[in-house]
Amino acid sequence: MLELRLVQGSLLKKVLESIKDLVNDANFDCSATGFSLQAMDSSHVALVALLLRSEGFEHYRCDRNISMGMNLGNMAKMLKCAGNDDIITLKADDGSDTVTFMFESPTQDKIADFEMRLMDIDSEHLGIPEAEYHAILIMPSAEFARICKDLSSIGDTVVISVTKEGVKFSTRGDIGTANVVCRQNTTVDKPEEATVIEMPEPVSLTFALRYLNSFTKATPLSNTVTISLSSEIPVVVEYKIAEMGYIRFYLAPKIEEDEEETKP
Amino acid sequence: MLELRLVQGSLLKKVLESIKDLVNDANFDCSATGFSLQAMDSSHVALVALLLRSEGFEHYRCDRNISMGMNLGNMAKMLKCAGNDDIITLKADDGSDTVTFMFESPTQDKIADFEMRLMDIDSEHLGIPEAEYHAILIMPSAEFARICKDLSSIGDTVVISVTKEGVKFSTRGDIGTANVVCRQNTTVDKPEEATVIEMPEPVSLTFALRYLNSFTKATPLSNTVTISLSSEIPVVVEYKIAEMGYIRFYLAPKIEEDEEETKP
Amino acid sequence: MLELRLVQGSLLKKVLESIKDLVNDANFDCSATGFSLQAMDSSHVALVALLLRSEGFEHYRCDRNISMGMNLGNMAKMLKCAGNDDIITLKADDGSDTVTFMFESPTQDKIADFEMRLMDIDSEHLGIPEAEYHAILIMPSAEFARICKDLSSIGDTVVISVTKEGVKFSTRGDIGTANVVCRQNTTVDKPEEATVIEMPEPVSLTFALRYLNSFTKATPLSNTVTISLSSEIPVVVEYKIAEMGYIRFYLAPKIEEDEEETKP
Repeated sequence: MLELRLVQGSLLKKVLESIKDLVNDANFDCSATGFSLQAMDSSHVALVALLLRSEGFEHYRCDRNISMGMNLGNMAKMLKCAGNDDIITLKADDGSDTVTFMFESPTQDKIADFEMRLMDIDSEHLGIPEAEYHAILIMPSAEFARICKDLSSIGDTVVISVTKEGVKFSTRGDIGTANVVCRQNTTVDKPEEATVIEMPEPVSLTFALRYLNSFTKATPLSNTVTISLSSEIPVVVEYKIAEMGYIRFYLAPKIEEDEEETKP
Repeated sequence: MLELRLVQGSLLKKVLESIKDLVNDANFDCSATGFSLQAMDSSHVALVALLLRSEGFEHYRCDRNISMGMNLGNMAKMLKCAGNDDIITLKADDGSDTVTFMFESPTQDKIADFEMRLMDIDSEHLGIPEAEYHAILIMPSAEFARICKDLSSIGDTVVISVTKEGVKFSTRGDIGTANVVCRQNTTVDKPEEATVIEMPEPVSLTFALRYLNSFTKATPLSNTVTISLSSEIPVVVEYKIAEMGYIRFYLAPKIEEDEEETKP
Repeated sequence: MLELRLVQGSLLKKVLESIKDLVNDANFDCSATGFSLQAMDSSHVALVALLLRSEGFEHYRCDRNISMGMNLGNMAKMLKCAGNDDIITLKADDGSDTVTFMFESPTQDKIADFEMRLMDIDSEHLGIPEAEYHAILIMPSAEFARICKDLSSIGDTVVISVTKEGVKFSTRGDIGTANVVCRQNTTVDKPEEATVIEMPEPVSLTFALRYLNSFTKATPLSNTVTISLSSEIPVVVEYKIAEMGYIRFYLAPKIEEDEEETKP
């Protein structure tokens, strides 16, 4: 028996909107710890990892660990039917091949339940090794999204270079070149507007803008984004989900001379 | 000579937006009582009936009963050119084959007149028999529109079941099933937010969501919608037009075993 | 060396949005007087003239007159990457075949530079003779844009007729005819809402709505538009750019019996 009650149901709506275009089908794993997902994107270039910790749910019952295969497009269709203020409860009976999403309006006058068939999905859970990052950049998530979108009107890849003074995003395309520099800035009125660089070493890495733009669909989940960079290992683009967990996107850097997309 | 002056011209704009996608060509009937229309949709499945009573017009002159055939798409194009605060006057000379829509801005600084050629349209005026309905449901029109839209992302038809406790909308499709229950609720702050069920008998009927979704284009005309249900006769979905009349949509229920659309 | 610093960078963004669909490639001319452009639209029917006077820039350095050929679509793409509150600086080294747009955020925390290759564009600078206009019409720019858009849902051309009382815009199409009359009105609360007619002589001229609609993309630049009309010479549709200059569009009237577009 599984029953997870999330008062701030809009969080789950936003999570699905963040990942449904990147990943088609995926297993949601449910354990005493929380509700999580790990999946490669459909072209096997990027990886997404989601964690919603059990403490963040108003009610969390998970009698035994289960893995539920879902089509994220269909799940997103159902969650779109939840109001932004609705409480969402996810339910599954033991051994059932369906999952039910229940949406309760704040006044309890409208209650909807949507039942979806589960899928069998082959997936190996990748161990993501703990890594030491050369540079960790924390910046407003809307700013990062804006920069990725702007640069992709000029080129296909971005070089992210971090130094003590700030971070530079550069691209080059048929119509010209573009550089955007954000300076470290911790003296802002609101902490979520700060740009902070934690950096033992300068680093400069190249990424496909298409994937970064896809990651920025998680922007509504958090005011800030944390970008962890180290040469030769995938960048981590993390959006924290308040008091519940995170959604993390991993993307391997492109090799300098390589014009094709680097597959891991 | 026909001259109808409507101070709240936006009403007529909204009426046309409600019906132009459902009905291509129709006769508007003008008499001492009011300005009315009755038409089948282009696939002859649904019927729309409009009444704007003469008392609702600032000036209403209709020397003799006339029936004016109009293309609703063209009429809607012209009415889109009226500002939302404009006064709209509809004029036709006796024996003329054109109708004129005049739009006056509130300050009278801008006056537009649009002339449209009338059409000959064959149509028989259907007598709609007065019926006793098993269940009458009054609910916020935006809520009804939201439910029809949500369910049509899952299935093609909806079962509407009314009991003393509330109304249930159910659908089923390839990706799963959905049920939305709205409880009777008359203790709300604003009367237009109430859900009221007047019900001598429980009733459960099946309808094509495509038509219900089309009817909900009338949502801007009224905060509430009245849905009258009885087995074996068409549902009536009514939007009242404040102090003027109504727009009513009729749709025959689908027969249980019938997978095809039921034509009347 | 060229260096032009414009504090209100959004002006340059709006200028490009106004003309990029009308003109593909054009030379921007830079002199001690200001930054200007004159170009025919791609079908050689309309002409656009832009002037941003040097006094309107915070910093204006132009060591020698230069003409810089740019693709306006690409330039607009780059300027879209500037924030609405950004300061925009345009820079070019002597003899360089590139131009750089620098965008500074108001807090100086984000600085972007976009470099674009210049083009060689053949163009002859047309002398526009000073003309005496029969009628000069000043009206709210949003009203003019609305009328052009509304009428183009009915017909392809508009007859603009000016008399002492006001201005009439008329069109005719398959679905009917339309006339919009705006009365002279100088007693309004806000001067930008006035409709003023300066008119030695009545005039009535016919224009292609497609071009007028294109000109109205400049509406965000100014609350008012000035339309100067005279028989047999092109109309001038002018949007003033506060304290800096103007953007002017010229369009030859259509000859009465001529159903085809009149090329100059």
